Amino acid sequence: MTHKKIGIDEIKLLLNAMGERAVSASRQLAGMSSGAKDECLEAIADQIEKDKEAIIEANDQDIDNGIKNGLSSAMIDRLRIDAKRIKAMSDGLRELTKLEDPVGKTIITTVRPNGLEIKKISVPIGIIAIIYESRPNVTVDAAGLCLKSGNAVILRGGSESINSNLALAHCITRACISRGIDEAIVQLLPWTDRNAVSELLKMDNYINLVIPRGGEGLIRKVVEESTIPVIKHYKGICNIYVDSICNEEMVLDIIKNAKCQRPGVCNSAETVLIHEGIAEEISPKLAKMLIKNGVELRGDRQFCSLVPSAKKATEEDWSTEYLDLILSIKIVPHIQAAIDHINMYGSQHSDLIITENSKNAEKFMKEVDSSTVYHNASTRFTDGYEFGMGAEIGISTDKIHARGPMGLKELNTYKYLVFGNGQIRK
Amino acid sequence: MTHKKIGIDEIKLLLNAMGERAVSASRQLAGMSSGAKDECLEAIADQIEKDKEAIIEANDQDIDNGIKNGLSSAMIDRLRIDAKRIKAMSDGLRELTKLEDPVGKTIITTVRPNGLEIKKISVPIGIIAIIYESRPNVTVDAAGLCLKSGNAVILRGGSESINSNLALAHCITRACISRGIDEAIVQLLPWTDRNAVSELLKMDNYINLVIPRGGEGLIRKVVEESTIPVIKHYKGICNIYVDSICNEEMVLDIIKNAKCQRPGVCNSAETVLIHEGIAEEISPKLAKMLIKNGVELRGDRQFCSLVPSAKKATEEDWSTEYLDLILSIKIVPHIQAAIDHINMYGSQHSDLIITENSKNAEKFMKEVDSSTVYHNASTRFTDGYEFGMGAEIGISTDKIHARGPMGLKELNTYKYLVFGNGQIRK
Repeated sequence: MTHKKIGIDEIKLLLNAMGERAVSASRQLAGMSSGAKDECLEAIADQIEKDKEAIIEANDQDIDNGIKNGLSSAMIDRLRIDAKRIKAMSDGLRELTKLEDPVGKTIITTVRPNGLEIKKISVPIGIIAIIYESRPNVTVDAAGLCLKSGNAVILRGGSESINSNLALAHCITRACISRGIDEAIVQLLPWTDRNAVSELLKMDNYINLVIPRGGEGLIRKVVEESTIPVIKHYKGICNIYVDSICNEEMVLDIIKNAKCQRPGVCNSAETVLIHEGIAEEISPKLAKMLIKNGVELRGDRQFCSLVPSAKKATEEDWSTEYLDLILSIKIVPHIQAAIDHINMYGSQHSDLIITENSKNAEKFMKEVDSSTVYHNASTRFTDGYEFGMGAEIGISTDKIHARGPMGLKELNTYKYLVFGNGQIRK
Repeated sequence: MTHKKIGIDEIKLLLNAMGERAVSASRQLAGMSSGAKDECLEAIADQIEKDKEAIIEANDQDIDNGIKNGLSSAMIDRLRIDAKRIKAMSDGLRELTKLEDPVGKTIITTVRPNGLEIKKISVPIGIIAIIYESRPNVTVDAAGLCLKSGNAVILRGGSESINSNLALAHCITRACISRGIDEAIVQLLPWTDRNAVSELLKMDNYINLVIPRGGEGLIRKVVEESTIPVIKHYKGICNIYVDSICNEEMVLDIIKNAKCQRPGVCNSAETVLIHEGIAEEISPKLAKMLIKNGVELRGDRQFCSLVPSAKKATEEDWSTEYLDLILSIKIVPHIQAAIDHINMYGSQHSDLIITENSKNAEKFMKEVDSSTVYHNASTRFTDGYEFGMGAEIGISTDKIHARGPMGLKELNTYKYLVFGNGQIRK
């Protein structure tokens, strides 16, 4: 399989045809039983395992191209599909079959004084476009989540993983056909021209929601161009505030986990704020633990005077998502200064207070304007699986529709069914 | 008060200052008690009544300008504020004080196997921008709904009502000051240059949601330019399907209500589809009733052969929102043709089946992809008050966040509060 190069006029025509097919497929899917959807997920899992060699071969092409194009070893690693990652994909699909179908639930029933019965019920959103970079497993994970939640999906992966994505999409198509299901429930854009994305983002007559997954640059481009609603998070600048009365051991354990366990993800910590009443005591211990774990420290003037080995932080540090073993640290005079710092420099993702003072915990959790606010637990828990959703399509720092981890429920909307016996409006 | 004319650079600076002030005000508002918010609503209602004469005087300027600028009499009527409309505005604010405060409700609590307690609670969205045309009462209605739901609001009305809007905003400001509340919870753009809206729609660092209210042109412009999430409905093309087995009297009553009671609003009917099995019998009766009520009929070939006085409908008619005493009518061979027609030409607003066949009602309500689907009741009920929400900020035909009427609850989002005792992620 190779990357097709065609003109923009042809792309427009083909995109419209994809939109038409997605509408018709989404109607079939919206009416499908939970059993039929789960069988389709199983069939896709089987097909991926059966086609393992072809998938890895296609992936090898992407890896070769990536090396030729000078991708970093971290990017090559993200791109790679091996037997273990194939298994992770098919296991993920089988896990989805065990989750509850979110479609068709009655959310609330109201009976009005005039006798009208109004039922609010959950229904699929319709057609979702996912725009993503590098990791080819998103092709399968996103397709599975959309299918289970009753949504048709149009996928647009990065050019660096086009061969892998096409091979995976081919498996999904064949599995759908084998189950007698309209294969247009999952469609992958076979070309990776930038223009194609721009066109896709104007297709508000077909597509109901766009979810971009990738770097901030990609996401900003999507938001600027799209006339379709977008759910996103730009970045995760997670803050930890260490209050004056706190359990020292807990502080060290949580900060170690939040910073070091997996520094490259959005729910890891980037900044620690320390109450000045405890700064002198805890700063050297914290610095020792972090340096031992390979973390570079960037402190404000006060922290640097307590830990002379720390670099001086610049204004930019407070709003930087390092995604690396780097941590910025600031001493604050009181809890209000910590809250104000977080609301100013944070990204409304996940923020934490470590304290034994329940009044302060309550104040912090109320006033910090983030999608998830923690008391005495690592920010690393912001995740659909950890929240008990069973799976997640992403994390939102928007305030509209979904905030925080987005699972199957958040991939549904609702409609009102109104039952009458001839009522007219006075 | 006159309309200020200033340059775009100055507008940018002033808009940013408004954004900063809105952020700070929204923090105060988010933490305010229900009682304090209700007292502020009362104070605004009092102030509007006290300033009645000044408001009407400002409105007279708008009316004079409107007449000079050749506005239609319908538009002048929409623009006019008289004693009755003043009372409607202050009554509306007092009604809001009786509604339940949507903020701070626990939506769900989950306890995870590791002991983490996760609470999902309702919180205000933050800062909402409302962009609207002509009717100056929106200034007060929207401000009241945002205040009650804990959101700061930036209002941008039409140039034709700028003097009225400024006078009303002035009342709101003074009422806030009198209650010791940051008056920046409600800010009106004092200038009406198009450029100012374009700038406003890029302020995604301050504003969390945009709600446009007005004609389709205005709304499309907002959607195209905004990098902030938008909730909207373009138009209301409401369809009524008359099934083969139905109560004739009910058919005539409901269609009369849905078409004639208030033809200029979005939930009135624009198209009737009739099952061919009943067409011959019901079409003449329906036509007689509608013509008596001043309705112009535009039928397909089959309907025109049954009702020769009807005009011939064009393809365009099926997707036209007349907002007038005009109705398009089509004969369909079966329920599936009706569903397909509605999903193709409708606007996903409100659609209705009139039938005594419960299986058909079920099929129609499931397969019509609209925000509200009715069985045997007028589409005119799609409205926040009629749905029991107490008030509405608008109606959404989007699938994201809010669908159908949007009340106080839909002006809130949620956040997760996670309570731990030292949990770290394995």
